[in-house]
Amino acid sequence: MATSSGLRKASTEERRMILKRETGADLAHTSSHSIDEGKCKRNIENFIGATQIPLGVAGPMKINGTYVRGERLIPLATTEGVLVASVSRGAHATEEKGITVRMTRNGITRAPAFRVRDIDHGLKAKEWIEKNFGRIAKEAKFDKYLDMTGVNVFLAGRTLFARFEYDAYDAMGMNGATVMSNNASEIIEKETGAKFITVSGNVCTDKKHSGVNFILGRGKSMLADAFVSRETVENILKTTPEAIVEVNYRKNYVGSAVAMSSQNMHYANILAAAFIASGQDPAQVVECSQGITTAEADEGGLYFSIYMPILEVASFGGGTMLETQREAINVMQAKTSNEVAEIITAAVLCGELSGMAAQAALHLAKAHDDKRKL
Amino acid sequence: MATSSGLRKASTEERRMILKRETGADLAHTSSHSIDEGKCKRNIENFIGATQIPLGVAGPMKINGTYVRGERLIPLATTEGVLVASVSRGAHATEEKGITVRMTRNGITRAPAFRVRDIDHGLKAKEWIEKNFGRIAKEAKFDKYLDMTGVNVFLAGRTLFARFEYDAYDAMGMNGATVMSNNASEIIEKETGAKFITVSGNVCTDKKHSGVNFILGRGKSMLADAFVSRETVENILKTTPEAIVEVNYRKNYVGSAVAMSSQNMHYANILAAAFIASGQDPAQVVECSQGITTAEADEGGLYFSIYMPILEVASFGGGTMLETQREAINVMQAKTSNEVAEIITAAVLCGELSGMAAQAALHLAKAHDDKRKL
Amino acid sequence: MATSSGLRKASTEERRMILKRETGADLAHTSSHSIDEGKCKRNIENFIGATQIPLGVAGPMKINGTYVRGERLIPLATTEGVLVASVSRGAHATEEKGITVRMTRNGITRAPAFRVRDIDHGLKAKEWIEKNFGRIAKEAKFDKYLDMTGVNVFLAGRTLFARFEYDAYDAMGMNGATVMSNNASEIIEKETGAKFITVSGNVCTDKKHSGVNFILGRGKSMLADAFVSRETVENILKTTPEAIVEVNYRKNYVGSAVAMSSQNMHYANILAAAFIASGQDPAQVVECSQGITTAEADEGGLYFSIYMPILEVASFGGGTMLETQREAINVMQAKTSNEVAEIITAAVLCGELSGMAAQAALHLAKAHDDKRKL
Amino acid sequence: MATSSGLRKASTEERRMILKRETGADLAHTSSHSIDEGKCKRNIENFIGATQIPLGVAGPMKINGTYVRGERLIPLATTEGVLVASVSRGAHATEEKGITVRMTRNGITRAPAFRVRDIDHGLKAKEWIEKNFGRIAKEAKFDKYLDMTGVNVFLAGRTLFARFEYDAYDAMGMNGATVMSNNASEIIEKETGAKFITVSGNVCTDKKHSGVNFILGRGKSMLADAFVSRETVENILKTTPEAIVEVNYRKNYVGSAVAMSSQNMHYANILAAAFIASGQDPAQVVECSQGITTAEADEGGLYFSIYMPILEVASFGGGTMLETQREAINVMQAKTSNEVAEIITAAVLCGELSGMAAQAALHLAKAHDDKRKL
Repeated sequence: MATSSGLRKASTEERRMILKRETGADLAHTSSHSIDEGKCKRNIENFIGATQIPLGVAGPMKINGTYVRGERLIPLATTEGVLVASVSRGAHATEEKGITVRMTRNGITRAPAFRVRDIDHGLKAKEWIEKNFGRIAKEAKFDKYLDMTGVNVFLAGRTLFARFEYDAYDAMGMNGATVMSNNASEIIEKETGAKFITVSGNVCTDKKHSGVNFILGRGKSMLADAFVSRETVENILKTTPEAIVEVNYRKNYVGSAVAMSSQNMHYANILAAAFIASGQDPAQVVECSQGITTAEADEGGLYFSIYMPILEVASFGGGTMLETQREAINVMQAKTSNEVAEIITAAVLCGELSGMAAQAALHLAKAHDDKRKL
Repeated sequence: MATSSGLRKASTEERRMILKRETGADLAHTSSHSIDEGKCKRNIENFIGATQIPLGVAGPMKINGTYVRGERLIPLATTEGVLVASVSRGAHATEEKGITVRMTRNGITRAPAFRVRDIDHGLKAKEWIEKNFGRIAKEAKFDKYLDMTGVNVFLAGRTLFARFEYDAYDAMGMNGATVMSNNASEIIEKETGAKFITVSGNVCTDKKHSGVNFILGRGKSMLADAFVSRETVENILKTTPEAIVEVNYRKNYVGSAVAMSSQNMHYANILAAAFIASGQDPAQVVECSQGITTAEADEGGLYFSIYMPILEVASFGGGTMLETQREAINVMQAKTSNEVAEIITAAVLCGELSGMAAQAALHLAKAHDDKRKL
Repeated sequence: MATSSGLRKASTEERRMILKRETGADLAHTSSHSIDEGKCKRNIENFIGATQIPLGVAGPMKINGTYVRGERLIPLATTEGVLVASVSRGAHATEEKGITVRMTRNGITRAPAFRVRDIDHGLKAKEWIEKNFGRIAKEAKFDKYLDMTGVNVFLAGRTLFARFEYDAYDAMGMNGATVMSNNASEIIEKETGAKFITVSGNVCTDKKHSGVNFILGRGKSMLADAFVSRETVENILKTTPEAIVEVNYRKNYVGSAVAMSSQNMHYANILAAAFIASGQDPAQVVECSQGITTAEADEGGLYFSIYMPILEVASFGGGTMLETQREAINVMQAKTSNEVAEIITAAVLCGELSGMAAQAALHLAKAHDDKRKL
Repeated sequence: MATSSGLRKASTEERRMILKRETGADLAHTSSHSIDEGKCKRNIENFIGATQIPLGVAGPMKINGTYVRGERLIPLATTEGVLVASVSRGAHATEEKGITVRMTRNGITRAPAFRVRDIDHGLKAKEWIEKNFGRIAKEAKFDKYLDMTGVNVFLAGRTLFARFEYDAYDAMGMNGATVMSNNASEIIEKETGAKFITVSGNVCTDKKHSGVNFILGRGKSMLADAFVSRETVENILKTTPEAIVEVNYRKNYVGSAVAMSSQNMHYANILAAAFIASGQDPAQVVECSQGITTAEADEGGLYFSIYMPILEVASFGGGTMLETQREAINVMQAKTSNEVAEIITAAVLCGELSGMAAQAALHLAKAHDDKRKL
């Protein structure tokens, strides 16, 4: 078979020919794309074309955010039938009063790890880092759109973790944060004698479920809620506020407690589809989907909310610069990462609301089966 | 703005015109695709085109699996630079002795929730389900390629969860499992008086980190390992076995313990890229990325392994039937879901090994910065 | 100061004199006890007397168990004011219909760890253990009151864990299970070549919060529930069913979700007091207190339940043989470990119900402050 | 049987007679105690005597703390044989260089929960609390030995949690923190319109394993470490540094990862015994035992450390005022809660080190079996 260096050195066209010869795979569809191959060199190696993911558009959602005020659409790239329709239905059900969305903190993190001699050495290094934070933030800086804004130092035996927090403006910020944390680590190593071991000590925490992110937040920490009148719950969601509350209680609280799981139905579905569409990092859906759904009923109808302390999104850089991804951001009419965050958060609420309502109405199985309206 | 029903009723072309008019977004790239719109109606609503994700190919990986024996390539759809190169490097580093991959159990799960009167009623229902499992499995069956193979019943107060396990053959199985669990739930409701509340009570657990999946497994439970000689660690991975062991210890064990996180570096990266390329459900990366990396050094070199008790993949159905996704599966030369599972597991090992080695060599920041080969 | 060997070799009286001389501590109260020092040699080293914990009695509780049917008292050793009164109040509130208590499985566990060469070696060892389970159970047996009843084997890289489950009859069983697991491990080492590393590989899991115990159970897995009429909630618990439901929702579900904590108020309080009183192992309160409280209201009143998949208790052996501890078991009128389990479970329900009601009535702060009756 | 009110109104002597008559239990030993019944009225209701727990003394431990410098003994109340001997052995093994102990933060917490109308109302309340923290801290104050020192506000849907942090000086502080949080909650309710639901919303988190405590700390956050020369590991601990490192790796890291458990062997054992002896709250062992053990070997010997971000202890108030408990604190020669914390932390390190060494030497089973010295 082709060697890895052979593949690396080949041109895109040669690579496809090698694959065809050795695996029999015809790449006609994969090669049918409009990506500017030269521009995406920073995003991929051994390029052979593009994966095409069906793209649908849901909404309009009525958003009462801090950055977004008014109606917005959300593009969703998915192969899971019903998902787009479900988000649209949630948007329709919330259009009366709209969806309130708030960001409560903001900052991407990276936590290099160091080896120290013992806890006293570690505590001295911790003190040095905290006292010299201003200097580190200044000397490690290499990009005018990336500022180090804080640090939390953890020490366990001979391993010290400096969880740096950054304002990355409209970028998601991980790549910049990695470089700047590397710079900071070299300063710390030099000044404290703590041996720099890795630029990412898992206390960041990137692309993994964690306690540290859920408690301290990572990226943008988001809240959203909506009131849905009883009539709307009945007419559009085809169920009752009380039935949704019961499903939320038995599934997202009792069931999640039994399973030791996160307290929501399917944030991951909406996040994955919105992340892929708009060029966010889909592996970060892992931590972004940690969250808590609440549902409360009264005479007037349903109160529904989502809690997402971790949302890592960008309007600039990385995958957002690719052609179709940029078009999707244009569909969202988002100029900044804060706007992207508010729109995606609103979409998660819509999808969660509609999905919970579908389960409350026992439609879920039928929806998957018959492809009828959920 | 357009209403949600307006969008739903419009044709694809009309929808794009509405979007252009109302958001200003030009969808030239999005509409440049080769998806057969008619065929993907089960996968998407409000279709407006396709998101294009750059696709690269990594490998060849030498796989000593139960289903796959020999060299295989892995297509990865990603916008994260270095990822494809990293998996390729891991493949190159393991080509001497190859990567052993094993599946230790297999079965997708769905856990409907029921309301019972009290724990005695719940225990009677539990007993009935366990005793009549054979009947339930037979009567709920609707698809010859889906068999109910087991059940675990959990009872907490007035909520009962029946976690059904299925053999879905080459499909991932969630949709079928949902329908069949719905059928089973109607039987249970009728026979036991337990009130059927939702077909998914979160004890499944789908698209969320959980204890129940990590302990009992979900989808395919996978193990993989490889030995890398000291020379290869030094020459290809540019570090030493001992440095990798130290990073694994300080990052994946001490760091993950401090952060309350999963014990690996970045399974999610490789899984997300492989899932998107081959039409798996990218939201399931959330649970599939729960896992444990081990690294041990001796005179001969490095022992490296991954533990992934949850891997939900298919070779048939869902997103795997789309054009470019099918081509990617052809590149993998995979005929069955077990082959897909082994190939993706091997790729995770390659990416994890190379990533850990890069951190051990303190290359990570530079790789992201300079875009040089790691 | 005295050396550790000096302390070890001294008599009890000499030891007290050494302590008095070197620390100034008068041990008049500590030496005022009625423990038969000779008999408790298996329980303590460097004996200097006894810690006295105030003992109160709560109840009577009306228990509808499988093993216990009728009224029972629960002795509680605690220094936390209000606790005994609270359990008594819960008992009083449930005396109309009584407390249903059920055990859903039973078995203590110990999980030795082994080093294997690689996953193939590990899987062979796993297969051997599973196939030869009957032989292992027979050959490792050394005590007629301890039977090995099952095994779950986990393999992660080069480490294999055999989680053995035992029926220890009326003993808690950890010491016996340790010895028998040691015997079993020597057989496994000899037959499979897996190197025996430690008799406890933390997959047991003893005295630590864990996923494996919460999903698979450890010791006795218990459920209990009670109905309390609206009048009783109002007259005895001084609140309403709805207020208790709201506290349960906001505190045990939303609050525990935010905090990443267990879904109950204070199982640990009742367990610690009952364990100390009756000679159970108080360090096991750590895992026994993992559990889920549910509360549901309807016109008739309140449905209230607890879920405790882990309860490690004995009526024989260890601390239960000491003088005052034996008297406490006599107060419980418990002859078997199953009876002890049912009585303690009922007490946890009483304490949890009363505590939740007190919070619902906003009495908690005042109760601690004024020492008035809650 | 006696009614709960009958028991409450009876005198101690009458209560014992009732118990004897109704359960047959003779309480001769239980009534043989030296507790001043009048003084312990704040600690217990329905008093019937005292539970006697065998008390041993371990050490001396050589402590290099911030508050404690020199040799100290640790009294341990336990019925688990070998535990005292094990802590003594760990003390003996560390006497060369001593045990470094450090406290990195200090403060008990209580988190009342409030119901708000929606997230905007909640965010306004959050802002009010943060801006008026100084006023709240002043107006809620009722005890000169209790200061409110900080607050973290969490908002999830309609539930707001104000996690107040307190300096309780030498008391553990929960009771005072409850009263003061109640006072603060009434101010917040009045000023913000947030409805005060419960004084403890589980975000505290008291007596439960949690993420919030592990990340933010609760009570006193402690670190300790020790170097043990190779000779001492071999001569006193009867094993090698490398064997301890291997057990720590396979058990506390790989095993705990597989089990989803905390990364230590048995902090709970030492904590429970020390807490009971010195009058701490034994139910808090649940959260205090969350922690991480590290072990590293080099030519010179073994580096060993413990990480305990949560340690709730007092030298004053609650159970510490009882007779035998006070004597135990005198044996510790501790005047302040910080001294108590350092001594108990050192004891946990000793017990963990010796326990891990025993497992490394495969002595554990034999020690439990033969009662020989480990």
